[in-house]
Amino acid sequence: MSSDTADTAADSAGADEYDRSAAEAAEAADLVDPLGAARDRFVLPEGLIYLDGNSLGAMPAAVLPAMNDALSRQWAGDLIRSWNDNDWWSLPGRVGDRIGSLIGAAPGQVMCGDSTSVQLFQALVAACRMRPGRTVLLTDGDSFPTDQYIADAVGRLLDLEVVRVHPNDVGEHLDARTAAVLFSLVDYRTGELFDAAGITGAVQRAGAVMVWDLCHAAGALLVELDSIGAEFAVGCGYKYLNGGPGAPAFIYIAERLLAELELPLTGWHGHRTPFGLDQHYTPSLSVEQARIGTPPLLSMLALDAALDAFTGTSMDELRAKSLGLTDRAIHYADARLAEFGVEVVTPREHRRRGSQVSLRMPQAYEVCQALIARGVIGDFRAPDLLRLGYAPLYLRHIDVQNSMQILYDVLATGAYQDPAYAHRNPVT
Amino acid sequence: MSSDTADTAADSAGADEYDRSAAEAAEAADLVDPLGAARDRFVLPEGLIYLDGNSLGAMPAAVLPAMNDALSRQWAGDLIRSWNDNDWWSLPGRVGDRIGSLIGAAPGQVMCGDSTSVQLFQALVAACRMRPGRTVLLTDGDSFPTDQYIADAVGRLLDLEVVRVHPNDVGEHLDARTAAVLFSLVDYRTGELFDAAGITGAVQRAGAVMVWDLCHAAGALLVELDSIGAEFAVGCGYKYLNGGPGAPAFIYIAERLLAELELPLTGWHGHRTPFGLDQHYTPSLSVEQARIGTPPLLSMLALDAALDAFTGTSMDELRAKSLGLTDRAIHYADARLAEFGVEVVTPREHRRRGSQVSLRMPQAYEVCQALIARGVIGDFRAPDLLRLGYAPLYLRHIDVQNSMQILYDVLATGAYQDPAYAHRNPVT
Repeated sequence: MSSDTADTAADSAGADEYDRSAAEAAEAADLVDPLGAARDRFVLPEGLIYLDGNSLGAMPAAVLPAMNDALSRQWAGDLIRSWNDNDWWSLPGRVGDRIGSLIGAAPGQVMCGDSTSVQLFQALVAACRMRPGRTVLLTDGDSFPTDQYIADAVGRLLDLEVVRVHPNDVGEHLDARTAAVLFSLVDYRTGELFDAAGITGAVQRAGAVMVWDLCHAAGALLVELDSIGAEFAVGCGYKYLNGGPGAPAFIYIAERLLAELELPLTGWHGHRTPFGLDQHYTPSLSVEQARIGTPPLLSMLALDAALDAFTGTSMDELRAKSLGLTDRAIHYADARLAEFGVEVVTPREHRRRGSQVSLRMPQAYEVCQALIARGVIGDFRAPDLLRLGYAPLYLRHIDVQNSMQILYDVLATGAYQDPAYAHRNPVT
Repeated sequence: MSSDTADTAADSAGADEYDRSAAEAAEAADLVDPLGAARDRFVLPEGLIYLDGNSLGAMPAAVLPAMNDALSRQWAGDLIRSWNDNDWWSLPGRVGDRIGSLIGAAPGQVMCGDSTSVQLFQALVAACRMRPGRTVLLTDGDSFPTDQYIADAVGRLLDLEVVRVHPNDVGEHLDARTAAVLFSLVDYRTGELFDAAGITGAVQRAGAVMVWDLCHAAGALLVELDSIGAEFAVGCGYKYLNGGPGAPAFIYIAERLLAELELPLTGWHGHRTPFGLDQHYTPSLSVEQARIGTPPLLSMLALDAALDAFTGTSMDELRAKSLGLTDRAIHYADARLAEFGVEVVTPREHRRRGSQVSLRMPQAYEVCQALIARGVIGDFRAPDLLRLGYAPLYLRHIDVQNSMQILYDVLATGAYQDPAYAHRNPVT
């Protein structure tokens, strides 16, 4: 037996003791979890620990009967009559309001539809048009690429300079030239949660318009849009909202703006009298103006059914559970993974933490693949982050413990060095 | 018996004779219809004659098992791994190519996604950017409103004048100021089919860029996009393509333009290396650049399955069938409905006719409602058109005959005057 092997055996013994105690604590936490029963609302593959709900949420069981009804009764049976008889016409606004209730928005301010990229374009053009004469659009150079690409596209169309600024430094860059600011509320790589109220206030004191991207926040943590007072927000339906692959996105427009807004994508569904079939566009006076073309109804009906999984829960409960799960992962990483050079990148302060834990390690890609092979699905973000997302509706504390234990084993045994894990898939 | 009643009785006797003979002819035509078996690929409600496939196509039977698989195996089971394992990533391009094969486009030029309104915006901005310095955008003042609204929106963003011109008069308005021209290939109200090759040629000789809206053409009639040589086309997935309510739309970009294009909606899926997560956008060199954000996969998987209904058919067959159906409806209207003041608005020449027949009558709204109550679904277009769409994949000649006979009865008996039919639904 080499000394390396002896060390590993000793570590394993220590890990066993730590893990036994940690598993007991996790099981105890699950026993008193007020959201424990919500897990039964999801169809989850046997034996899999799914820590990628921040990329694609798991499927709520309510989706299956809802889609059968949507297909066989509504589409095949009622056909075009469904626009009236099955309330297809009002669906985007109804789903918008349901999402609104999860992000602190009173009814009549959220519209569901299209993709996050398209909604970003809507919001940014409208925001910048509210400040004619101002010439700068600020965004975060670390935010998800589509936010930056759309900001650049809007800059090109409206002749604005796009400046990249970290959200925590925005105060140094705000001035009378700033038209609008686009930030993600949670950094998709590090999981850092930004100060929504503080940043919005600073932006507005400079006379600029605030646009929040809530993709990594909606459904996982408390967002009080109305009280924060931001002008716009957008987000997607397929992460913590569990609406299915490519589920329609949403846009929030503060009620006080609805009468003065000029959105750029003036599809006929947003017209004040869409069935008048006028030659010229007059926007609806309500949030209906944020509709564009005919929405993808099958996808939207799936999202509508998926939102049932939130029934009877509160965002306070969900946030507490999420923090409990991420606390557990961070404590484990601090206690057991530092020896492998693993660094916890996600902030430790609750007020600065989203619903994920990102671990920096040079071998992150291979480790992620090794975890997947062992039934633990997280994801990799270049160049060196293992990103673990914690959906509070369907994850248990014991899932956190078991997944961290498997991560420990992958690192301790060097299992990630298997050449099979070095192949890079086109999409991960 | 009043003389009015006696006349009606005499008319009915004549109608009986006409209808008997017409029904025999229709049944004979169905017996030799090469597309007769395609009807079995659809789930159609018993006893209903559906003449609104130009608003929402009927559901192909293949959609049900495909959606079950999409939900239970792909989403719920494979979760995020489906992007690789179930080829979600390549779906928009694959569906695009399948649509391309129905509209005369060689592979690599059609991308599926978003709504027609969004695709119109993409195409029009890109088209106008190809002609800097030109200041006019032409569109049809009779075309579907969203086309006009988006044209106006693009005009506002790019500082262009939008001029409304009828497609048949475009020659008189083309000059060195014309940047781009947007027309629908088929007028959604009258069913008039325009001269795609002739108009495209005239537009291009004036140095302008041609954008066709194929919403009322794709899947119902022969469109030879590549040979017509138009720069752009867009269309929807939920009419004659039968992709389901709000099915994703498509955009065609002629291959010769792909290297020089600047699309405005630069979502991350269109990036040359989307998983490089660059700060700045570099478009894909292929039609993949027309992707925007994450597409509504459930809706797109339904559309993909729906396209199976076209397997083994040819657009020549479909066009011949469509013309046979509309010929039958027009002949009936000419022979039997003129006495009620019904005017056939749709052109009688085959080369000028889409796949619908529009009948002008002052009581069109009430007649449409009375037909629906009798199991014949067409639609109404203000102020006075009854619009009957003929989807050649699933309609029989006898359906045309039976529906026209019911229309005759509704008119002859005055059944449409029932006050119940005067109520206007919000959406029809």
